[in-house]
Amino acid sequence: MAPTPDDARVVRTRRDVLHTALTVLVDEGRDAVTHHRVAEAAGYSRATVYKHWPTRMHLLRDAFAQLEDGPHHVPTGDLRSDLVAEVTQFRTDMQHDRLDRALTVLADLAVSNAELAEVRDRLVADGERVLRQVLGSRPDGPEREAALLMLCGAVLYSALLHGRLPGDDVIGASVDIVLRGLSAGPLSAVGGGTA
Amino acid sequence: MAPTPDDARVVRTRRDVLHTALTVLVDEGRDAVTHHRVAEAAGYSRATVYKHWPTRMHLLRDAFAQLEDGPHHVPTGDLRSDLVAEVTQFRTDMQHDRLDRALTVLADLAVSNAELAEVRDRLVADGERVLRQVLGSRPDGPEREAALLMLCGAVLYSALLHGRLPGDDVIGASVDIVLRGLSAGPLSAVGGGTA
Repeated sequence: MAPTPDDARVVRTRRDVLHTALTVLVDEGRDAVTHHRVAEAAGYSRATVYKHWPTRMHLLRDAFAQLEDGPHHVPTGDLRSDLVAEVTQFRTDMQHDRLDRALTVLADLAVSNAELAEVRDRLVADGERVLRQVLGSRPDGPEREAALLMLCGAVLYSALLHGRLPGDDVIGASVDIVLRGLSAGPLSAVGGGTA
Repeated sequence: MAPTPDDARVVRTRRDVLHTALTVLVDEGRDAVTHHRVAEAAGYSRATVYKHWPTRMHLLRDAFAQLEDGPHHVPTGDLRSDLVAEVTQFRTDMQHDRLDRALTVLADLAVSNAELAEVRDRLVADGERVLRQVLGSRPDGPEREAALLMLCGAVLYSALLHGRLPGDDVIGASVDIVLRGLSAGPLSAVGGGTA
């Protein structure tokens, strides 16, 4: 069945309101995400917002869920440039969409809310998908996990605790360290023996 | 001049209240850190808390400042074990003192409050001191910065976005990757030329 104009209107309303909820969260802080404030900022009635999201938790959950399916680098097969491009994409998301603030709030709320923990887990799995794929030629285990945590972690830590995003030089250096560090590990030991 | 009993009492009161404020923050969330709740939890009168900290921001600022001068590994000169021990200490602080929650709230508040940004910067500088010292034999620049961000970032990212702390195997793998990655870099190139 073809979607009716009503369906299209509902889809647009939901998208507008959730987009606004996320903007309010990032710009005005988590406490500002109320039905009242989001309805006002999005230009819809409070009744409409309540109809779609009966509680504040529903509103927050769906607002965070929007962050899934964010933009990703499409791997080319060049390991170094694929890693640099994907880590740089993570930085771009933080810069343009203030993803660092949204993730910080989500991480904090997920500690005590199982539903938001699920949203966080899905979002993080989607966010890490391409990096895991690119690193996938390496043997699974603590080394690959460490590489993933370090590449993502460097960007998040810098944003949160240094109050700035890492430069291209630091991202490039991170990828180089990881690639050399992994290369000298189990993989090359298998091929090249030990000194 | 020797401290009077009154001085000792003031010191103890301040320490008790600030310690309680941090516990309330971590256990009950940032919104719970009010003069009312902290006075109640610490067993002091609200008047006492107001006398020492006229505003909520004063109370938060001094509560976070307590986190400075946290425990650190004392370097032994063995690069690998010094790095593993210091990164493990960072993990321990998150585990026992829920430092991840305190840092998350501080990072979020520091975005819009210059005074808390200063507290964050002092705290982070103190937190990174030993790692910077241990990595200090490496040339300054993006490589060393990347190594520091990755080692600290892996722990923070895992805590916040995976909802768990990295195991000993992952911390060990992180340090190994960084040491091999750095060793194969500019330092060894200087000594060994290029292939």
